[in-house]
Amino acid sequence: MPVYRLTIEYEGTRYSGWQMQANTPKTIQGHLERAAAEVLGEVSLGGAGRTDAGVHAIDQVAHLRCRRPFQPGRLQHELNDRLPSDIHVLRVEKADESFHARHDAVSRIYLYQISRRRSAFGKPFVWWIRDSLHLGKMEEALSLLPGRHDFAAFADKRIASESTLVDIERTEIGEDEDLILIRLGASHFLWRMVRKLVGAMAEIGRGSLSIDEFGERLRKGRPRFEASAPAAGLFLEAVLYPGDEFRRPLQSIVPVWSSGRKRGSNG
Amino acid sequence: MPVYRLTIEYEGTRYSGWQMQANTPKTIQGHLERAAAEVLGEVSLGGAGRTDAGVHAIDQVAHLRCRRPFQPGRLQHELNDRLPSDIHVLRVEKADESFHARHDAVSRIYLYQISRRRSAFGKPFVWWIRDSLHLGKMEEALSLLPGRHDFAAFADKRIASESTLVDIERTEIGEDEDLILIRLGASHFLWRMVRKLVGAMAEIGRGSLSIDEFGERLRKGRPRFEASAPAAGLFLEAVLYPGDEFRRPLQSIVPVWSSGRKRGSNG
Repeated sequence: MPVYRLTIEYEGTRYSGWQMQANTPKTIQGHLERAAAEVLGEVSLGGAGRTDAGVHAIDQVAHLRCRRPFQPGRLQHELNDRLPSDIHVLRVEKADESFHARHDAVSRIYLYQISRRRSAFGKPFVWWIRDSLHLGKMEEALSLLPGRHDFAAFADKRIASESTLVDIERTEIGEDEDLILIRLGASHFLWRMVRKLVGAMAEIGRGSLSIDEFGERLRKGRPRFEASAPAAGLFLEAVLYPGDEFRRPLQSIVPVWSSGRKRGSNG
Repeated sequence: MPVYRLTIEYEGTRYSGWQMQANTPKTIQGHLERAAAEVLGEVSLGGAGRTDAGVHAIDQVAHLRCRRPFQPGRLQHELNDRLPSDIHVLRVEKADESFHARHDAVSRIYLYQISRRRSAFGKPFVWWIRDSLHLGKMEEALSLLPGRHDFAAFADKRIASESTLVDIERTEIGEDEDLILIRLGASHFLWRMVRKLVGAMAEIGRGSLSIDEFGERLRKGRPRFEASAPAAGLFLEAVLYPGDEFRRPLQSIVPVWSSGRKRGSNG
């Protein structure tokens, strides 16, 4: 049975998330499966990361199992011809028969974009924060994350049955023009965890949450942190498999800039 | 009577254009006037360029006349607080009492973005053309434009009463990654003229219209060229007033790129 590995980018704004659900027809996975079924007949398709409504991806990975082989380049074109304009298959590659996008992935990397500035083009791609944020404090708080911690305080309460232990492999924070970028990498994340951690970073940057209080929540697993950062600023930036290396520099994804800054001014 | 000069950027996707019309409430001008009236009471507001539905601007200019003075920086904030997220006032400056955004403007510059490549983020900001385009031919055709010509063949038939003579001051074409950028500058443009000229450039690039046929339409003013480029790729890039200099390099406005190109690949 042929298996293909798809690399996909999408703007999540119009969708109820990656994963197909009974009552929400507008999912990325649903559109991909429908397009694939039109080309290939019966298929099964699964993604590496279950992004929420409004969350974007520039490098989601999915496996596609089907009954007959198809030339990968042609399959990419046939799929894109059938997909809405905000879902795009970047690559199709032949994969091992055993390839499973979610089980085989060893790391997920998410990038979050906070904007210090309003802009007419930014809303779907950033969290605009007016208050000035103390980057040094945010960086110090982020430095507490690498390693294994119980993230019960930063998990959605609807996942009570899962283990809340997560190994954080990578944290980065930096600036790109008017954006503050926060990158988190781990073998897996709990539901809403990235957005809750970014929400905490924003409160730390504002000074309304102390680094000590944040550290205590990490140690004790409570009290639950309620404020999630908005979905709009979040991108699934990469999914890594054994042997993959991640080399994307920390830079904005959809540069959201103002005409007044990047161009020469008029007179 | 105080007069302010507003510099505005907007994403035109959701709007029926700049100008207020009786039956189409969703205009950029309408939103700005409403916001200004909430802050200042009775106002009058007029823009320099009447962009169509779906056309964007990074540097639209408007005059705002009102009854009482207001601190410009505060006015900018008060307006932005009342505007939808895809309309943004970049600057508010005190202007001469006689300032009129449209009458005083000496030049309008438009930028059009053609993409050679599909992308999940590009649809609202580019015209995606699959066929390969011959840039040299497009450049040669563009070089016929500077100077005064009768653009009757490239005007919408609904403007039959206006003069169709236009002085083209500036034409540029270039590439920025996967985009082809076409810039046109003139004291004024006829309705749909930029989009019709870009439509002609695309046909010339594809080889379905010859440079000679294009030149003949410029000389004879007919037959009318019907194919307009889509609104999505078009940006009002600048409005110039006496003494202004335009220095923005020819570069894409909302970079529409694919994850596979700009970042290091994963393994």
